[in-house]
Amino acid sequence: MNGVLIDGTGAPPLVGSAVLVDDGRIAWVGPAGAFEAAEGVEVVDVAGTWVVPGLLDANVHLVSDLMPDVLLRYDIGDYDELVLEAAQVALKAGITTVFDTWGPLDALKRVRDGIDDGALVGSRIRIAGNIIGNSGPYGVDFLPQFGELLNDGVVERINAVWEQGVGDDLTWMTVEGVREAAREYIGTSGIDFVKYTSSSHSDGRFLAFSTDAQRAICEEAHAAGMTAQACTQSPQALDAAIEAGVDLLQHGDITGYYPMPDATVELIAGRQLPCVAFLMTDAHMETLSDTWRGGIWKERSFVRDQNARRLIDAGAKLALANDMGVYSSESKSSSLFGDLVGQVDDPRELGVAHTYWIRAAVERGMSPMDALLCATRNIADAYHVLDDLGTLEVGKRADLLILDADPLADPDNYLRIAHVVKDGEVVDLDLLPETPVLT
Amino acid sequence: MNGVLIDGTGAPPLVGSAVLVDDGRIAWVGPAGAFEAAEGVEVVDVAGTWVVPGLLDANVHLVSDLMPDVLLRYDIGDYDELVLEAAQVALKAGITTVFDTWGPLDALKRVRDGIDDGALVGSRIRIAGNIIGNSGPYGVDFLPQFGELLNDGVVERINAVWEQGVGDDLTWMTVEGVREAAREYIGTSGIDFVKYTSSSHSDGRFLAFSTDAQRAICEEAHAAGMTAQACTQSPQALDAAIEAGVDLLQHGDITGYYPMPDATVELIAGRQLPCVAFLMTDAHMETLSDTWRGGIWKERSFVRDQNARRLIDAGAKLALANDMGVYSSESKSSSLFGDLVGQVDDPRELGVAHTYWIRAAVERGMSPMDALLCATRNIADAYHVLDDLGTLEVGKRADLLILDADPLADPDNYLRIAHVVKDGEVVDLDLLPETPVLT
Amino acid sequence: MNGVLIDGTGAPPLVGSAVLVDDGRIAWVGPAGAFEAAEGVEVVDVAGTWVVPGLLDANVHLVSDLMPDVLLRYDIGDYDELVLEAAQVALKAGITTVFDTWGPLDALKRVRDGIDDGALVGSRIRIAGNIIGNSGPYGVDFLPQFGELLNDGVVERINAVWEQGVGDDLTWMTVEGVREAAREYIGTSGIDFVKYTSSSHSDGRFLAFSTDAQRAICEEAHAAGMTAQACTQSPQALDAAIEAGVDLLQHGDITGYYPMPDATVELIAGRQLPCVAFLMTDAHMETLSDTWRGGIWKERSFVRDQNARRLIDAGAKLALANDMGVYSSESKSSSLFGDLVGQVDDPRELGVAHTYWIRAAVERGMSPMDALLCATRNIADAYHVLDDLGTLEVGKRADLLILDADPLADPDNYLRIAHVVKDGEVVDLDLLPETPVLT
Amino acid sequence: MNGVLIDGTGAPPLVGSAVLVDDGRIAWVGPAGAFEAAEGVEVVDVAGTWVVPGLLDANVHLVSDLMPDVLLRYDIGDYDELVLEAAQVALKAGITTVFDTWGPLDALKRVRDGIDDGALVGSRIRIAGNIIGNSGPYGVDFLPQFGELLNDGVVERINAVWEQGVGDDLTWMTVEGVREAAREYIGTSGIDFVKYTSSSHSDGRFLAFSTDAQRAICEEAHAAGMTAQACTQSPQALDAAIEAGVDLLQHGDITGYYPMPDATVELIAGRQLPCVAFLMTDAHMETLSDTWRGGIWKERSFVRDQNARRLIDAGAKLALANDMGVYSSESKSSSLFGDLVGQVDDPRELGVAHTYWIRAAVERGMSPMDALLCATRNIADAYHVLDDLGTLEVGKRADLLILDADPLADPDNYLRIAHVVKDGEVVDLDLLPETPVLT
Repeated sequence: MNGVLIDGTGAPPLVGSAVLVDDGRIAWVGPAGAFEAAEGVEVVDVAGTWVVPGLLDANVHLVSDLMPDVLLRYDIGDYDELVLEAAQVALKAGITTVFDTWGPLDALKRVRDGIDDGALVGSRIRIAGNIIGNSGPYGVDFLPQFGELLNDGVVERINAVWEQGVGDDLTWMTVEGVREAAREYIGTSGIDFVKYTSSSHSDGRFLAFSTDAQRAICEEAHAAGMTAQACTQSPQALDAAIEAGVDLLQHGDITGYYPMPDATVELIAGRQLPCVAFLMTDAHMETLSDTWRGGIWKERSFVRDQNARRLIDAGAKLALANDMGVYSSESKSSSLFGDLVGQVDDPRELGVAHTYWIRAAVERGMSPMDALLCATRNIADAYHVLDDLGTLEVGKRADLLILDADPLADPDNYLRIAHVVKDGEVVDLDLLPETPVLT
Repeated sequence: MNGVLIDGTGAPPLVGSAVLVDDGRIAWVGPAGAFEAAEGVEVVDVAGTWVVPGLLDANVHLVSDLMPDVLLRYDIGDYDELVLEAAQVALKAGITTVFDTWGPLDALKRVRDGIDDGALVGSRIRIAGNIIGNSGPYGVDFLPQFGELLNDGVVERINAVWEQGVGDDLTWMTVEGVREAAREYIGTSGIDFVKYTSSSHSDGRFLAFSTDAQRAICEEAHAAGMTAQACTQSPQALDAAIEAGVDLLQHGDITGYYPMPDATVELIAGRQLPCVAFLMTDAHMETLSDTWRGGIWKERSFVRDQNARRLIDAGAKLALANDMGVYSSESKSSSLFGDLVGQVDDPRELGVAHTYWIRAAVERGMSPMDALLCATRNIADAYHVLDDLGTLEVGKRADLLILDADPLADPDNYLRIAHVVKDGEVVDLDLLPETPVLT
Repeated sequence: MNGVLIDGTGAPPLVGSAVLVDDGRIAWVGPAGAFEAAEGVEVVDVAGTWVVPGLLDANVHLVSDLMPDVLLRYDIGDYDELVLEAAQVALKAGITTVFDTWGPLDALKRVRDGIDDGALVGSRIRIAGNIIGNSGPYGVDFLPQFGELLNDGVVERINAVWEQGVGDDLTWMTVEGVREAAREYIGTSGIDFVKYTSSSHSDGRFLAFSTDAQRAICEEAHAAGMTAQACTQSPQALDAAIEAGVDLLQHGDITGYYPMPDATVELIAGRQLPCVAFLMTDAHMETLSDTWRGGIWKERSFVRDQNARRLIDAGAKLALANDMGVYSSESKSSSLFGDLVGQVDDPRELGVAHTYWIRAAVERGMSPMDALLCATRNIADAYHVLDDLGTLEVGKRADLLILDADPLADPDNYLRIAHVVKDGEVVDLDLLPETPVLT
Repeated sequence: MNGVLIDGTGAPPLVGSAVLVDDGRIAWVGPAGAFEAAEGVEVVDVAGTWVVPGLLDANVHLVSDLMPDVLLRYDIGDYDELVLEAAQVALKAGITTVFDTWGPLDALKRVRDGIDDGALVGSRIRIAGNIIGNSGPYGVDFLPQFGELLNDGVVERINAVWEQGVGDDLTWMTVEGVREAAREYIGTSGIDFVKYTSSSHSDGRFLAFSTDAQRAICEEAHAAGMTAQACTQSPQALDAAIEAGVDLLQHGDITGYYPMPDATVELIAGRQLPCVAFLMTDAHMETLSDTWRGGIWKERSFVRDQNARRLIDAGAKLALANDMGVYSSESKSSSLFGDLVGQVDDPRELGVAHTYWIRAAVERGMSPMDALLCATRNIADAYHVLDDLGTLEVGKRADLLILDADPLADPDNYLRIAHVVKDGEVVDLDLLPETPVLT
């Protein structure tokens, strides 16, 4: 009561607002002056704060630190501790819902369900399980160098935890074979949404699936009432995914060495097709060097940045994401991650990266209000959960991020957190993460 | 005169035949008894021989030995000596026309033109130059291990000799970008036909071009009056190429780990779409081991063999090819080629591999006559040069392979060569190759 | 009582013998007929058995399976479970004492002491800790490929567990520096004997220490009352170690590509300098192929075998060893160990390899009795513990291996175990290993 | 006549000097005022110049650019063109004699002899051929990455050009075997001096030969009237070489990670044992970074620099060398050489590196006069050719470097060359190198 309300619908901030929560949902929202507390209602005065919807992240990997010395500490697949830590890091940062787009299915489901049930505390998790068409972490699409060195049996069992029957093998199948495998996976795995790879993961040059195969996956997702998203890294892969009928472009701002064609920019903006972009701040872009990773990364990053600017200008429906999770301090200085994670305004590290994203969006001409929508409403819309999440409107889940400073004035203020409310409950942030393993 | 004529049309052998050659072309063909030699005509009696059309090979690489110690002997690009040696090895084996489907453009053109002009002796060469979408030999799609070790400038210049502006970079382009680059290449390079890659070359799992991009390449080829062919290695890539409108499937029998769908078999056979297959003899297949190259090769080879059998059964229009060339003896025992080239009934080595192909075809149920058509008429048909080549009919080039034993009785008899006639001239086989470099 | 006694002194078997044990030591030994049991003495009739000294192994690595998926299961350094399992595998095979010549110091000490105290059951362990001059397992001398891939901090901590301050860094030091580091290690580490490397470990070509530095290490060991041994792989390294004053040559039969000079053979035999040899059976040698590991292994193995034959002929004092330990079944089929461990008559696997060693010795002309001495008396002599171990004589520890068949008739009979007695106690072999982890 | 003479004996500069040359040797030297030209003597006035002995370089590799694209341009072994170019680059810089300490024997001999005969123009060459105990360039001690990729036969033939029967194989031999191979090589190869490796080349940690084997090589060299030198990289290897009796320490300033013991500094200085040092200027040392080549290089370079300072302070007899040769511009930017050659004050590049060496010596407290002796007299002394070379004294070869500015005032003045006189003849520097291949 009495905070400045920014409800995530795009409406201007409402100074002196009230939000009534009942049974975890928003029962009333409006000017504090118009609010009459019924008997038994506890009134909390949050004057001097800004109230925004709990943030969403359209693409995280709660298990991101894939170094063998991390994974091999656990029985294969029992990564619940890692998942939960990351979900708590997210929640502590006011991100009340995360969409995990590639991870160890069973651990993710256990933690997801534990959080949904209230048995565990953490950001709400929705999961894709495997990216259809990709291998597990030590397989051909990610870190085969580990796969070659560790025992075959161990590698196979670890990969299987991720692959779930829809791994890299599917790229070899016929369209019908892909369709059947996808259908089986969608029907039996307990996932929340479908992700497949349109591009080859490791270099991005190639298409992992033909347009027909991509269409088959989308159709199976839709038939099961799920959204479908594709991971794209090149112009042709992007076009194929759009043609196949995806609901969300996963990093649709990436087109390799050549800019996105005008026609594609217009298509994405015109259809208001939700599109995750990986925005980088100016400060981060200055760290990109010509020699780093052979200069390839810098070159592609500048193309990506131009694409993002054009999408913003065209009014595309962008969604915020960081695409990664948390890391041990050792992994942050490893040969694998050392030049990636922890750089200036690092766009990857869960818990802080979202503020860099918003800052980058504003630097690139987006209004602070629209940038907030990219982290709330647009994501809920993309995942077809706008009835439940993404704005502070009557009937929705009472996920609130209450800040001590105006987030529209400075993106860093998203970290000046007074309270995080999830499903109407105030989270005890001091306890999180409960069992720090990596952080 | 008086040889057994097998004219390559599928007609039964004609015992006691005559062929009249005039100005390098066939002026008359028929029973010797019906032939009346005009004055001034030289009559050659070849009684006791079998006369078949000069053979064609639908896919060779006249420069196949890509070891640096071979290429670096020459100024970059000046590989004429290598090209000519291979063309002479082919001619010596009775292969009067070869289609080089990936090679150093300028050297190939120089030797092609020299042979066409009569300045050089060798098999007639028709060339694709680069496989559109693939890198040069030391680039990412072939032998990047050499690219990493040699000086960058040298590597770039060698790769450029092959790439000709339509290299791996094209896979990053938009469909329109691909179309424009292809058009430019087709219009200015002096090639004879167009080849692009539908599959990623190094592992075959992925598609190098979307269906739309493939269609753009085919359209540009056809607009320029050229045939288009695609290199495919997986079911999805095969389907995409067919859908894109190719005239020839380059190793359409390869589908990786999963057999070709029935629908695809029927489509290829039903449309009589020319299809190169890489047939292996039973003896060769017995040499494939579970441990060789991780067992992958064996597994894929057996799938390929099953596909080939089904295509034969369905009556597909197959074409013979060996996909390689000649090698130095050192390269044959190198770590790179040592387990590939020179195996039992090696299907790759130019000059002998065609006899293994024909033997394999017969082992797989094809009639010896049909197998001969795969090495003659079907290839000419696939490349739209049936007016000129592929059968012994009036008006065609007088390319004749004259054998001392019946080739339909035993494929080895294709090597029992009495004479090779090209453009009506008897070739002096003893002189070939004139300058042995590798052989 | 009443077994055939082979006492390990070289004396002929005594049919109908008696051994009196008191407080874990042998109080009387002789013909059963001469034995008068005092009151209270328990008499066990072992008629029909053969009684030999508990075997010794001059070189084991109780932690041999160094695959990351094995080591990373444990907190770094807490490998007690692995050590104990291997010590129990040894004991179950009648090997009552093992000399661990490279391993994780603290875990080895804990298990050694636990066994000595009677708190744990297992083969008696004596330890060298690190091989002075060698890195830890993921360091430059052993498996750097793992060191490069795992997190640096993890690698450093794992290596430190083995290195204990006397790792590969010592090869860079001055002779005085080496002496001081060795003295510090010998004085404070709690090891039982000293091992250093004379040869470079990974390729064996080079000397890790100059003769002067080797002499300094030997002097420091002797000053502390310990034996010193060297790991040698080449003729020059072997000569340097002998000159430096070692008490035991660790695999003194290895000389790389050139046979041991006659002078060296005579020196070793003449001085009766104890010498571990890695004998291979004829059957094992037949498995060595020209292509395996580039043929190097085969070539060196044949040189080694010739050296061993010459040492046997010259009457050298050889000692049995297997140089390895136990492995998980997955590791046995890994790329790292798959072509090493588990081969025909594999001379490396603890628990069975000793029988192959003895068979090989006999095949190479040694008498079965002398071969037994190589596994008992010679090892105790080499380690200066002959007062305690190695023969069945009054005053020594009552370590007995009681067999159901004559071991001198067939080496396999060493595995036909009736009882294993250690320190006078019958071991319950059925319980071993108590906690199978790898086996 | 009339130049300032600095005669290389250490005597102070003589203003107004005269040097009489007869038949390529110095017939008279002294004050110009005391000189009386006989009839027929041509008098050249060089007033305003400084006259110093032609410089020597104690360690070059005239064939240094070992990239395959350089070597494979030539028939194997026919590297005369490369040798000559480098010898001419040296001569152009006033270095009239170079000691090539590892190179392709036959090409070196041909060019050496051609220059000695007057048939070719270039710096006088004296050669070691192979470094006894080291492989050829693509073998295990240098660039095995090329050896693995190129054809085995090519690699073997290239390596053999360098190895000459005294390659890496010798490290496996017995001391007697080493002695015999060395004797054979010394006796039959036509080399001028003997070099062997005391340290393992690739990492420097190990000793390539035992002290006894090193002594055997030195004895064989001396028996043949040749000097012997050793390549050392660690304290133990350095001590072993001194003990073995070498005449010249090849980079005796290198001791890896630990400083040279005081006793060794005193020994080298006390005995006046000639010692090549690789001095680096302060400016060069500032370019060494913590991340470059894992920081190892920087760490070792600082140890080396401290050693050099202590040797200078102790009055050791140092010799100048650059240890390398010339490179193509592409090789200078290659992954192999790119971070080595061409850095600030690069101590490796023939033709300029000697001025950096002298500057570094002066920076480290040596007098400019002593620094000049390191490039002249000390080297002639080390190689036992002081009767012939190294100073401007009667009877010696008339090798003169005539400069337009005082070299003792500024080392850069060694490049302000007025004339180079070799064997009494003025060299036409404008013509050099006659056939630029790499430069």
